[in-house]
Amino acid sequence: MKIALAQINYHIGNFENNFKKISDAINKAKSEKADLVVFSELAVSGYPPRDFLEFDDFINRCDATIEKIAAECIGIAAIVGSSTRNPEKKGKDLFNTAFFLEDGKVKSKIFKTLLPNYDIFDEYRYFEPNAEFHTVDFKGKKLAITICEDLWNVGDDLLYRINPMDELFNLKPDLMINIAASPFDYDQAEKRRSVLLQNVEKYKLPLLYVNHVGAQTELLFDGGSLAINSKGLITDEMKYFEEDLMVVDIEEVERKTFVEKRPKPSKISLIHDGLVMGVRNYFEKLGFTKAILGLSGGIDSAVTLVLAVEALGKENVRSILLPSRFSSDHSVKDAEDLAKNLGSPYDIIPIEDAFKSFNGILEPFFEGLPFNIAEENIQARTRGLILMALSNKFGYILLNTSNKSEAAVGYGTLYGDMNGGLSVIGDVYKTEVFELARYINRDNEIIPWNTITKPPSAELRPDQKDSDSLPDYDILDEILYQYIEKRQGPNELIKMGFEDKIVHRILKLVNTNEYKRYQTPPMLRVSPKAFGMGRRMPIVGKYLA
Amino acid sequence: MKIALAQINYHIGNFENNFKKISDAINKAKSEKADLVVFSELAVSGYPPRDFLEFDDFINRCDATIEKIAAECIGIAAIVGSSTRNPEKKGKDLFNTAFFLEDGKVKSKIFKTLLPNYDIFDEYRYFEPNAEFHTVDFKGKKLAITICEDLWNVGDDLLYRINPMDELFNLKPDLMINIAASPFDYDQAEKRRSVLLQNVEKYKLPLLYVNHVGAQTELLFDGGSLAINSKGLITDEMKYFEEDLMVVDIEEVERKTFVEKRPKPSKISLIHDGLVMGVRNYFEKLGFTKAILGLSGGIDSAVTLVLAVEALGKENVRSILLPSRFSSDHSVKDAEDLAKNLGSPYDIIPIEDAFKSFNGILEPFFEGLPFNIAEENIQARTRGLILMALSNKFGYILLNTSNKSEAAVGYGTLYGDMNGGLSVIGDVYKTEVFELARYINRDNEIIPWNTITKPPSAELRPDQKDSDSLPDYDILDEILYQYIEKRQGPNELIKMGFEDKIVHRILKLVNTNEYKRYQTPPMLRVSPKAFGMGRRMPIVGKYLA
Repeated sequence: MKIALAQINYHIGNFENNFKKISDAINKAKSEKADLVVFSELAVSGYPPRDFLEFDDFINRCDATIEKIAAECIGIAAIVGSSTRNPEKKGKDLFNTAFFLEDGKVKSKIFKTLLPNYDIFDEYRYFEPNAEFHTVDFKGKKLAITICEDLWNVGDDLLYRINPMDELFNLKPDLMINIAASPFDYDQAEKRRSVLLQNVEKYKLPLLYVNHVGAQTELLFDGGSLAINSKGLITDEMKYFEEDLMVVDIEEVERKTFVEKRPKPSKISLIHDGLVMGVRNYFEKLGFTKAILGLSGGIDSAVTLVLAVEALGKENVRSILLPSRFSSDHSVKDAEDLAKNLGSPYDIIPIEDAFKSFNGILEPFFEGLPFNIAEENIQARTRGLILMALSNKFGYILLNTSNKSEAAVGYGTLYGDMNGGLSVIGDVYKTEVFELARYINRDNEIIPWNTITKPPSAELRPDQKDSDSLPDYDILDEILYQYIEKRQGPNELIKMGFEDKIVHRILKLVNTNEYKRYQTPPMLRVSPKAFGMGRRMPIVGKYLA
Repeated sequence: MKIALAQINYHIGNFENNFKKISDAINKAKSEKADLVVFSELAVSGYPPRDFLEFDDFINRCDATIEKIAAECIGIAAIVGSSTRNPEKKGKDLFNTAFFLEDGKVKSKIFKTLLPNYDIFDEYRYFEPNAEFHTVDFKGKKLAITICEDLWNVGDDLLYRINPMDELFNLKPDLMINIAASPFDYDQAEKRRSVLLQNVEKYKLPLLYVNHVGAQTELLFDGGSLAINSKGLITDEMKYFEEDLMVVDIEEVERKTFVEKRPKPSKISLIHDGLVMGVRNYFEKLGFTKAILGLSGGIDSAVTLVLAVEALGKENVRSILLPSRFSSDHSVKDAEDLAKNLGSPYDIIPIEDAFKSFNGILEPFFEGLPFNIAEENIQARTRGLILMALSNKFGYILLNTSNKSEAAVGYGTLYGDMNGGLSVIGDVYKTEVFELARYINRDNEIIPWNTITKPPSAELRPDQKDSDSLPDYDILDEILYQYIEKRQGPNELIKMGFEDKIVHRILKLVNTNEYKRYQTPPMLRVSPKAFGMGRRMPIVGKYLA
């Protein structure tokens, strides 16, 4: 039996676009003589459709699109994910469903049993969990079809009380097929392969796995769909961060005994590739082509610019250098050098006049008071204002250049450098930004080495350095990682050897700056715990604060 | 049996504060000879603790606080809500728990069965649903204790497959006690009373109900705890929007046959009281006392100022008038009149110099291009910058003055008038803002009538009116209400009689402006569907857009 795996970049709510991609893949699979083509979870609407699911009209469009896809399934069968109504009065209104389409109509519906509701997932918000199990007979084979999380209840600490695949296994299937929407983080592909292999090992059945690819606002999907034979050999692995269609012969998959292993990509290369896809898809899906950003000469805006140029093309990213009286000479030079290295347009707009004008306006109120955070923020906000004015006039999306370390401790100015339609490196710690810069420079000097080696500074007052107000980034980032990604509390951190005072200071900074993060742009998610929809904190909370 | 109901304003994560309030209430209940004192759901941590629940350290503090409260329960019993660990390996890590404390220790634990996971609720993110049921014997009575949602599976369209109270009813209890954290909206108190009365009618048992009161960032809790006897008579109703402690004799509750009905408060008075509490608690819980806002002479900032003055005191709210070349004379006069009526401090800071300075800076780029949204936004952002500079210098929280109609269609400037630590009327449609203004003026003219009667305008270009770019607010707000609160799609709206073209235009505006709302301050929630945590939409979605 030949089965096509269709790894597609869907667009949430864009039913016509999604239908066209699905239809094209069906035709391609037919032309390659596939018996069955498999699409991913909620393919019809894109994932995650979020509260669009609460609209009857939206579900009607899901249903209508399934009908249209079914009509294409002549001479080929398809498995397609969509949302469907729960016919019973009791329970939530919808099921997360895998449709089995054959002979121009819906032959079977498989509902998702395990509904992830942690981190970025909200599936229990919409869907009723399945409680009845059946396989699908197709061309003499029994298919055990599951949806994403359904295979994830493995290991020591089980999140759910049942295992849908246990139920299906009792029905003696020949093949497991899992359709998924498994978002990327730099550890996820490894975790995913491990979870899928645990299932193969347990049930001794071949497994075909079809994932989403592409970015939906902050969520990145890396693809990497798989075929695994019953001996636990990954026989086929699809592209990462790209659409792909692959036809496997399931008997051939079973026969294979050796496959050359792909080299394991580095964490930084994964982050790099994910971010480039994230920027590109954000613009494409919103119908924009051009970006603008403030280029300071520092490492954060430098890395952001390079990623944006890779995503959008050098001519489509415009850098604005916005020096103030506190900018060092090397800042402007480093920024210019980078823009020139990239061949990307840039302008220099000094902010002195506007800064002076605000100082004049505020003089009657500020008289006699020392220069402080207020004046620092005026500079950052003046820059933000100029960038937004250019954005409004010419139709650019402003890219935010803040990193995760800054976002964590509130080292940034709301309505100033925290502006932007999209935060490119907001889920990348400062130490990782340095790694990204070195990765970008791996073959030649794109980012001036001076940008990478000089001490980080916001340059908002004379001789300012980040290290004036923050611990060294090596220590800061490790504390942040343990607190944010690993949910370690103050006692655990102190036990790890971090200084009591620093731990309490950092944790307090993180918690009291929730109000700032509430108003930041969406941040492309590359870590297992990013700020935004996957980390939900009270603003008025007083915990470790 | 005498039972005290303690309706308390908790502070999320502030265990010491919450313990002290609980301890004080226990002592007060003792002094009034109560046998039992009942606190609300997750009283120990405050509600909702959100992802703080993912920290072991946080759960340890919950446990430690329960131990401290138990130690106070000598000569009196208590029911207290807290989070507790799931002792089993399978399933989520926590239970949402009602602790029954007696003789200085934990006598019983009741776990929540029905976990709301819609709108602003995320309980399935943290908690395992209960599956085992028991009553608590206390002084010869059997108590059926449930937690909030456990009593809400009533009516025609059941959200859950089981009814915990059905299970408890089989155990022949004498009394129902429900501890809750039921957030306010202008319909909620009515809905709540109806749901509770349906339970009393079904089980023919008296019911004591203890709710939270107070604001947690955007979520308002209105209190209104109740005693209902088995005949369905509401015998006692506690205060709304205020802390309260009431001792009821359960035999007396049962004996009552008549209680004078409270007058039903108007929707606008409820919104008013909720917003005042919301502003007050936001400042108190963050440790701030002073607010600043931009006072334009328009109705939105006028209503916001009055609410803030009620919440914080007239001397603690500073208004800044920021006229531009496009401001009408009456705007400044109306704004000044209002500040004078309130006896509240204000300053006038013309923005012309800064606007000119930006025009000069941008001239080389904008030359020959017509005045448009870019220049309009420069004005709004200049105002935002000045307000934030004053906020930073003097420690004010900036209040946002945007309304829900604007937030819905994106009629506002990011990093300009959309700035603020808290949006006071962001969940109040423009037509409701007018009603609020009239309500405020019910006894005398606080808000100048001219502010209420003149046509709304952003005054960012000559002779601008809101009606230049938007339908009349009567129509706009009704379409928005049907789309946002009622989840009606385009076809339903057109069937209601709204014009096809207007419907599509408005829905598109709502959906394509998700990116702006993503970056707005938290909005005090007064409606059944507010922007923010209760309405989760994709930014790159292309649905009705």
